[in-house]
Amino acid sequence: MSFVPLIETLGRQAREASLTLATADSARKNAALLRLAALLGERAEIIFAANKKDLEAAAAAGLPKPMIDRLMLDGKRLAALAESVRQVAALPDPVGEELERTTRPNGLDIRKIRVPIGVIAIIYESRPNVTVDCAVLCLKSGNACILRGGKEAFETNTALASLIVQALQETGLPAHAVQFVPTADRAALEPLLKLDQYIHCIIPRGGEALIRYVADHATVPVIKHFKGVCTIYVDRDADPALAEKIVLNAKTQRPGVCNAAENLFIHQDVAAALLPRLARALGQKNVELRSDPAALALLKNEAGLKLVPASGEDFSTEYMDLIMAVKIVPSLDAAIADINRYGSAHSDAIVTRDETAAKKFLAGVDSATVYWNASTRFTDGFEFGLGAEIGISTDRLHARGPMGLRELCSYKYVIYGNGQVRE
Amino acid sequence: MSFVPLIETLGRQAREASLTLATADSARKNAALLRLAALLGERAEIIFAANKKDLEAAAAAGLPKPMIDRLMLDGKRLAALAESVRQVAALPDPVGEELERTTRPNGLDIRKIRVPIGVIAIIYESRPNVTVDCAVLCLKSGNACILRGGKEAFETNTALASLIVQALQETGLPAHAVQFVPTADRAALEPLLKLDQYIHCIIPRGGEALIRYVADHATVPVIKHFKGVCTIYVDRDADPALAEKIVLNAKTQRPGVCNAAENLFIHQDVAAALLPRLARALGQKNVELRSDPAALALLKNEAGLKLVPASGEDFSTEYMDLIMAVKIVPSLDAAIADINRYGSAHSDAIVTRDETAAKKFLAGVDSATVYWNASTRFTDGFEFGLGAEIGISTDRLHARGPMGLRELCSYKYVIYGNGQVRE
Repeated sequence: MSFVPLIETLGRQAREASLTLATADSARKNAALLRLAALLGERAEIIFAANKKDLEAAAAAGLPKPMIDRLMLDGKRLAALAESVRQVAALPDPVGEELERTTRPNGLDIRKIRVPIGVIAIIYESRPNVTVDCAVLCLKSGNACILRGGKEAFETNTALASLIVQALQETGLPAHAVQFVPTADRAALEPLLKLDQYIHCIIPRGGEALIRYVADHATVPVIKHFKGVCTIYVDRDADPALAEKIVLNAKTQRPGVCNAAENLFIHQDVAAALLPRLARALGQKNVELRSDPAALALLKNEAGLKLVPASGEDFSTEYMDLIMAVKIVPSLDAAIADINRYGSAHSDAIVTRDETAAKKFLAGVDSATVYWNASTRFTDGFEFGLGAEIGISTDRLHARGPMGLRELCSYKYVIYGNGQVRE
Repeated sequence: MSFVPLIETLGRQAREASLTLATADSARKNAALLRLAALLGERAEIIFAANKKDLEAAAAAGLPKPMIDRLMLDGKRLAALAESVRQVAALPDPVGEELERTTRPNGLDIRKIRVPIGVIAIIYESRPNVTVDCAVLCLKSGNACILRGGKEAFETNTALASLIVQALQETGLPAHAVQFVPTADRAALEPLLKLDQYIHCIIPRGGEALIRYVADHATVPVIKHFKGVCTIYVDRDADPALAEKIVLNAKTQRPGVCNAAENLFIHQDVAAALLPRLARALGQKNVELRSDPAALALLKNEAGLKLVPASGEDFSTEYMDLIMAVKIVPSLDAAIADINRYGSAHSDAIVTRDETAAKKFLAGVDSATVYWNASTRFTDGFEFGLGAEIGISTDRLHARGPMGLRELCSYKYVIYGNGQVRE
């Protein structure tokens, strides 16, 4: 069966809704968000009923326990979700902000104004709260959205989407401003990726395979949120206690996220003095160390380490686990070159007291976020003060790093004249 | 023969060069540009010799005269090209500019800094000056570039590229910062479009077929420069003389460019009084009018018009010629809806004395550039004061409308800490 007509209809409806939504005032958008937050409480029973179906199907299909846990919505999670919706309502509206203004010698008054992108498709995997998070950020930024969630959460997502539509309708916003793709069939995905007639941007959120599939098949522009292979580089002039604190935090505070560190590089001049200390601290947190030959030689007599030789792949692998690749580097320049070669240009940090070295690192490391004496774990929309984020872009176009409401916008030039023509 | 190894080599070399170029200081980049401007004079003979080969091949292949003219480089054109290089050298360097800065409650000092995108591939058609224009804008903005020109200008482009490389080498910049694809074989294009390992952005410049091909086949992010189907809407409260002046300028001052107007919409309340006057003025400039039934009825007794019925396609066609589609609309809202439906979201104008109508149009028309009482012909990097442009984006991500040096940049977050870790 072809899903082309269905997807085209969704696209056309989204485009129409986006034109209304683009000029909707902030009060009305916020009213819709607050109504949604209320509905998540008032209508909790329909969400739990839908969620129960998904959980039963997941159990029957033998899904792993962590995945089932991510699917599950209980009262506490629903309350947190409603609270996050209220927080987005309280954020400033990015639409209409004047970004630049110039009057040309011929009198043309050129204003660069922030406007919504238009229609955004979000393609994501199992967690149903993504449905609400993305719908809310798109709505606040004046974008219509088409949501395509994972099949495991299909019933829950459908129920959540019905409440979003109810909130839109009750506040006089177009019902098609948020549409959930009403089929979990894989075949509906490709026509969505190619609908550049109506869709202006696709944001895939999920594992590397999903993002790769979307990037390879889309003709609509994609903003990718790929993996984070983040490195902490401990420089020759690092403060040992600071190095230990930052390495430990970046690796172990929450290993399963993209801004956690995967690599530890250390300058050869301080490796003998400092690496064993760092390794022991990591070892106490149960971190496996995949080490290059020089680091192996230095650490082989330490007791209690999970020490294994690093393979060629290790320095470009996102473990999302208590594993860290360790390498002794001959110089700052070598550290920078290795990060640019093996890393994913997400978030990288230098630990040093040497300002010259730090500035060289900050300029030379070609990553979205570079840190001097801080943990990479701060790469996050909330931590950056953006209020919320739809993801962390690993692309360089449009948005790089955490994407908040402003990054969900484009701009237009609005030009006031009084009869100017081109000579 | 597979061009994959060749293209991969170009990509790897570009990536390496980009890392050096990203931190090159403005003085060195400008020195390279000025050296290139000088070489375009000093070494003119090698360009003319190469250009002669292209022109002979074009004549032998029976290329149309306008195309042969676009291929041709003479002393005057070369001098103008050198002058444009000097102008780019004189522009401010966009790299390193601090876009935002915030200190978080935990003391993290977060700076958002403008940086080059990285590696940009430009894919274009016959005019050889594009080789120099694009190389120079990429160089100034710190981007390495891979240039893929049309086969008709292959010899000229190769000669120009050799001078660019000479200028890079003489000023101590990496020779691979600008690389021209050393084959005109069509089969070299596809591997370039899929080299997202090394290339961060593709900008196609040329006809719709080329841009469509690139957008459909690329996995690298593309910034499209599609067609301009621009509309002048003459409102109920338009000043008649102003309307005539703007319509005439937008249609006839240079019909073969993307910001020329293709459609004329006029409010029904003033059609009888004003459309015949506008039609006569356009007729005197030899413009064919493809008119909807109501406009046909109104104009059928006017002498000397090239009047034909409009087909369904006419209101979404980029003529690039002395042809204009004409339509009488029942209201401002209908004009806005038709522009959003038929136009290409490039540049559209309203002519009116009514501020309320103007503001509704400026907000409601979903185009990159919207004008009140001015010709659409001003949508241009120079006219906007950007100093130069690499094209006019019809996309909504990253850059919309004219793309200057700043739009050839991304940003990164540079974060100064003193031991911050995530709780």
